[in-house]
Amino acid sequence: MKNEIRVFAPASVSNVACGFDVMGFAINEPGDEIILRLTEKSGVVITKITGDNGKITYDPYQNTAGAPVISMLKYLGMEKQGVEIEIHKKMPLGSGIGSSAASAVAAAFAANIILEANLPRNEVLNFALEGEKIASGAIHADNVAPCLYGGFILIRGYNPIDIIEIPVPENLYCTIIYPHIEIKTKEAREILPIEVKLVDAKTHWGNTAGLIAGLITNDLNLVSRSIQDVIIEPVRAKLIPNYYGIKNAALDAGSLGCNISGSGPSIFALSSSIESANKIGEAMQKEVEKIPLGCNVYVSKINKEGPRVI
Amino acid sequence: MKNEIRVFAPASVSNVACGFDVMGFAINEPGDEIILRLTEKSGVVITKITGDNGKITYDPYQNTAGAPVISMLKYLGMEKQGVEIEIHKKMPLGSGIGSSAASAVAAAFAANIILEANLPRNEVLNFALEGEKIASGAIHADNVAPCLYGGFILIRGYNPIDIIEIPVPENLYCTIIYPHIEIKTKEAREILPIEVKLVDAKTHWGNTAGLIAGLITNDLNLVSRSIQDVIIEPVRAKLIPNYYGIKNAALDAGSLGCNISGSGPSIFALSSSIESANKIGEAMQKEVEKIPLGCNVYVSKINKEGPRVI
Repeated sequence: MKNEIRVFAPASVSNVACGFDVMGFAINEPGDEIILRLTEKSGVVITKITGDNGKITYDPYQNTAGAPVISMLKYLGMEKQGVEIEIHKKMPLGSGIGSSAASAVAAAFAANIILEANLPRNEVLNFALEGEKIASGAIHADNVAPCLYGGFILIRGYNPIDIIEIPVPENLYCTIIYPHIEIKTKEAREILPIEVKLVDAKTHWGNTAGLIAGLITNDLNLVSRSIQDVIIEPVRAKLIPNYYGIKNAALDAGSLGCNISGSGPSIFALSSSIESANKIGEAMQKEVEKIPLGCNVYVSKINKEGPRVI
Repeated sequence: MKNEIRVFAPASVSNVACGFDVMGFAINEPGDEIILRLTEKSGVVITKITGDNGKITYDPYQNTAGAPVISMLKYLGMEKQGVEIEIHKKMPLGSGIGSSAASAVAAAFAANIILEANLPRNEVLNFALEGEKIASGAIHADNVAPCLYGGFILIRGYNPIDIIEIPVPENLYCTIIYPHIEIKTKEAREILPIEVKLVDAKTHWGNTAGLIAGLITNDLNLVSRSIQDVIIEPVRAKLIPNYYGIKNAALDAGSLGCNISGSGPSIFALSSSIESANKIGEAMQKEVEKIPLGCNVYVSKINKEGPRVI
């Protein structure tokens, strides 16, 4: 048995405009790093957390990385095994790019290897979801699944959870801008309507279907036409200062489609070249600086591999 | 200029469970036949209608086949050209399998050829939609587009109309049963809710995305899991006696998915072989006879070519 493992898990963009709660994709950077270390003394202990400004709990039962490890040890009948966890947050918390999902996935992925559990990915998913549940209070797989599987993921349904891996065009790039404000996922959910107009719902199912068709058949024009949101965006845009200014700047700079990443405040913009992705990032940044707010900009291809041992 | 043309246009299944108003596919049979004949005397005249039990008007302006021809003549500046139309209905009216769409498409397709207009298909579509509008009172393309293009069609959006041709697995078969009751499209629309729960809408956009992915990647199991409707079916099922008995019989007989065709009363069931499609037809028929009602059963592959000159 190996004694230590260090795993990177990527950030992810959920919802993807039309696909609220059912779609997401992973990006190459940023991402979180988790170290698991087997110890003689039984019990799971979080020994170090960096990059969180002191915001994350060291209680392993209440920690998105701790819970999956505890749960997997129990499942394997290995409660006596001691595990130390180090969490190195390499991306901002609560920024809408799947920070808690990345920590949960990295921990579950690492535990599966170091405990020699050899569980298939769909079972590892369940342990990662337990970590995500601690963060968001509910089982949402639209960050966890893309982070764990890599690529673009459709969660067709939740009863039972049905993960579909959608092939993506080779030349698809994502620019993300994170304006330095905080939006709590819970609050971003509470402002959503319980009911929506059937005519708006139809618009969404036309667009989700179009987006999937465009991705699989490598039709970026169709992808672009399908990245629309008439239900969630109009409500959540109010939480992000100058949102439409930022979005329009991305579109004017040539983005295929731009929308809120997860529950925000991060905003993602897709494009078909690294040059375009960089240009879009600069254009969005100018709009954020007008507010004025600080921001982080990330430019990356779609991540295809999910977590990896480093 | 050729003097006469005879065109067949196929029946079609719209909605396809999850894709209310945005999806449809054409089937090989039944279908309507339209004959157009150029005449010396100006004006459009409907000279013969068969198979309609006297239900269809001979007024070309109020007729789904007449309106597209009149409209195309006007568009081409050929108002002086005389055209005779014969309409041979080879499928039941108001049965939910795109009867009016087939007549409108056949007429527009035939007019485009005999008038030597050489309009591209997306323009022919607009003329066919004018005919369909007379029948349903609104612009719905989910029967007209599959009938005209053949195959499985996604109407991603309506502003402007955005037709996406979705490849379908070679071995996809459709069984249709038409129980002999009448459901008016207008009434079937009026009972639908204006608003739906966001959670149900999400179920639909997950399923429409899943259905499209399953069709394109030839994953019939995914197609099967995606053919679900939690919004329209529960409301419209009440209009069809023993609907769930018929549906369950189809599923028990091995159907990949079964639901209401268009606004009903026809019910479609997909399967992956002709043997299975026939067996499903027999099972559904037994349930319709229990009501008791007469019925028609059609078994066919997905139609890939749309209308054709015969």
